Amino acid sequence: MADTYKIVIDTKGSDKGSSEIVKGAALALEKNEGLSLLIVGDGEYLRAECERLGMPQDRVEILDAPEEVTNYDDPSVAVFKKTDSSMMRSLMTLSERADLYGMITAGNTGALIAGSVRYLSAKERVRPCLSAVLPASDGSFTCLVDTGATIDCTPSMLLHFARLGSDLMRRMYGIESPRVGLLSNGSEPTKGNKLVKEAHPMLAEAEDINFVGNIEGNAALSGACDVLVCDGFAGNQVLKVSEGMATRLMTDIVKYAKRTGSDEVMKLVGHLMGVYDFSSLGGGIILGCKKPVIKTRGSSGADAVANTARMLLNMAENKAVFDKEKNRI
Amino acid sequence: MADTYKIVIDTKGSDKGSSEIVKGAALALEKNEGLSLLIVGDGEYLRAECERLGMPQDRVEILDAPEEVTNYDDPSVAVFKKTDSSMMRSLMTLSERADLYGMITAGNTGALIAGSVRYLSAKERVRPCLSAVLPASDGSFTCLVDTGATIDCTPSMLLHFARLGSDLMRRMYGIESPRVGLLSNGSEPTKGNKLVKEAHPMLAEAEDINFVGNIEGNAALSGACDVLVCDGFAGNQVLKVSEGMATRLMTDIVKYAKRTGSDEVMKLVGHLMGVYDFSSLGGGIILGCKKPVIKTRGSSGADAVANTARMLLNMAENKAVFDKEKNRI
Repeated sequence: MADTYKIVIDTKGSDKGSSEIVKGAALALEKNEGLSLLIVGDGEYLRAECERLGMPQDRVEILDAPEEVTNYDDPSVAVFKKTDSSMMRSLMTLSERADLYGMITAGNTGALIAGSVRYLSAKERVRPCLSAVLPASDGSFTCLVDTGATIDCTPSMLLHFARLGSDLMRRMYGIESPRVGLLSNGSEPTKGNKLVKEAHPMLAEAEDINFVGNIEGNAALSGACDVLVCDGFAGNQVLKVSEGMATRLMTDIVKYAKRTGSDEVMKLVGHLMGVYDFSSLGGGIILGCKKPVIKTRGSSGADAVANTARMLLNMAENKAVFDKEKNRI
Repeated sequence: MADTYKIVIDTKGSDKGSSEIVKGAALALEKNEGLSLLIVGDGEYLRAECERLGMPQDRVEILDAPEEVTNYDDPSVAVFKKTDSSMMRSLMTLSERADLYGMITAGNTGALIAGSVRYLSAKERVRPCLSAVLPASDGSFTCLVDTGATIDCTPSMLLHFARLGSDLMRRMYGIESPRVGLLSNGSEPTKGNKLVKEAHPMLAEAEDINFVGNIEGNAALSGACDVLVCDGFAGNQVLKVSEGMATRLMTDIVKYAKRTGSDEVMKLVGHLMGVYDFSSLGGGIILGCKKPVIKTRGSSGADAVANTARMLLNMAENKAVFDKEKNRI
């Protein structure tokens, strides 16, 4: 019999409500024999849903924690006042129980990071951060870190991010010595804001990372580095500006297709929609924790939840997390 | 007879060499009857070129200042040690002579800003900044400021940028009360890095600007505001990440067109190339000066120089600087 892995799914905090997350959980169980789940949220509701959806009872455990961390909650308030919430109980339980491998949540990112720091920090003085592994234009993948967990960073945090991102790319893709780039406003080592200028020599001198220098915004996802390091404010801009520009171009192309009535251009739209999938934005893997925690986008549907569970299983089985061929352009 | 305007063209500091800038100057004279020029650079070379290109002698004055500010020069060194350079002599002359309306250069941005602060500051304690007026997805225009003149900013600088950008949009497009947005990582007023959080209440309380709150990266060029304020590091990311994503999508579309042999998709490429013209990036209008100074991209060709001269003439004649219809999608 193959190894089995049990993961925690927080059913609260989703923009689409708990029902979509539970549907995703059911889908994940259906698709993955080696998976079992601890689902956390409103116990009564979850028991009824599990029965209604015909989820296998021997592979599902329910933890009753109906309180919700909302997107309006301040992270520190959520961590210290909402200790009975589904998110915090999920983190606590993951930390305490050896049989649990990892966790998925669609909830408040700031609260999740703060909770991860409190319950799951791997080492002292390493701040967990949020990474996104994005397909680069040359067919490779780039780990962008931090994408919004820590908005104001110190230079030494950027060094931590470089180490955590390198570690992820080593494990995920077997890249022996991942190239680390530093996001800046010019490629010369003298370019950058105060933070970047101070971080540059620290990254250059660190012997455990392979620093390749500054990377400009237009090369952020060109494949020029395997790990792109920046503070959470800049990382958020890279993600969202990319999304904005891609959405805009797609909208223009659709308008053009409608105006000209071109079937060939409509087919192109279908092709591009497959390649430029922004459904993972606002999500990502939290690095620097004792166990893997994945934040899915607040608006994630059942499919995204099931795919994320698959990603965790792949990590547990030490397989590549992404299907390279599928994502290749 | 129509009014005539004389502008300064710095012929040094271009990636393509002085010849391309001089060609652009000749083109500008040919296209605009009301224009005369002061061209600055290597006098002997310029005299020969003017004759060779048949430029009308009565509309061209030459200023001999052959020293060049290069892209490797530190801005403060350029300002204080290269006072005989074509860029600094251009700024000085523009400042001193009442018959000169504005200036165009393709040279080192940092040196240009530092020189503008020294020779052309409009008011004390207002720091000149670099703006880019970009077509938004709804057909309007957005003034992004700062795009890289000041990398590390104070909150009060962002307030200055908001005022300068509003002033430009009022004059250029007749927008009575331009909507000012603040680039952030979330739309809520509590979101942002330290700089943004401190600038937010200052912008909200300023009675001379129409502040509409935080704008996220994916809405940066959506038309949600007329002026988008950020520090030069973030502004540089907005420009370059947009450029990177657009270039990447275009490359993918061209590959797809070649693979499928679709003429209709190739026609779409032509259409998009016209709409998404990034040739203005790395350039922009310097705000906060006594007279308009326009930085064209280092790689600008003769056409870009001539178009920029036209833009200055339009500003002088108080016409809209951009042709709305042409830029509309």
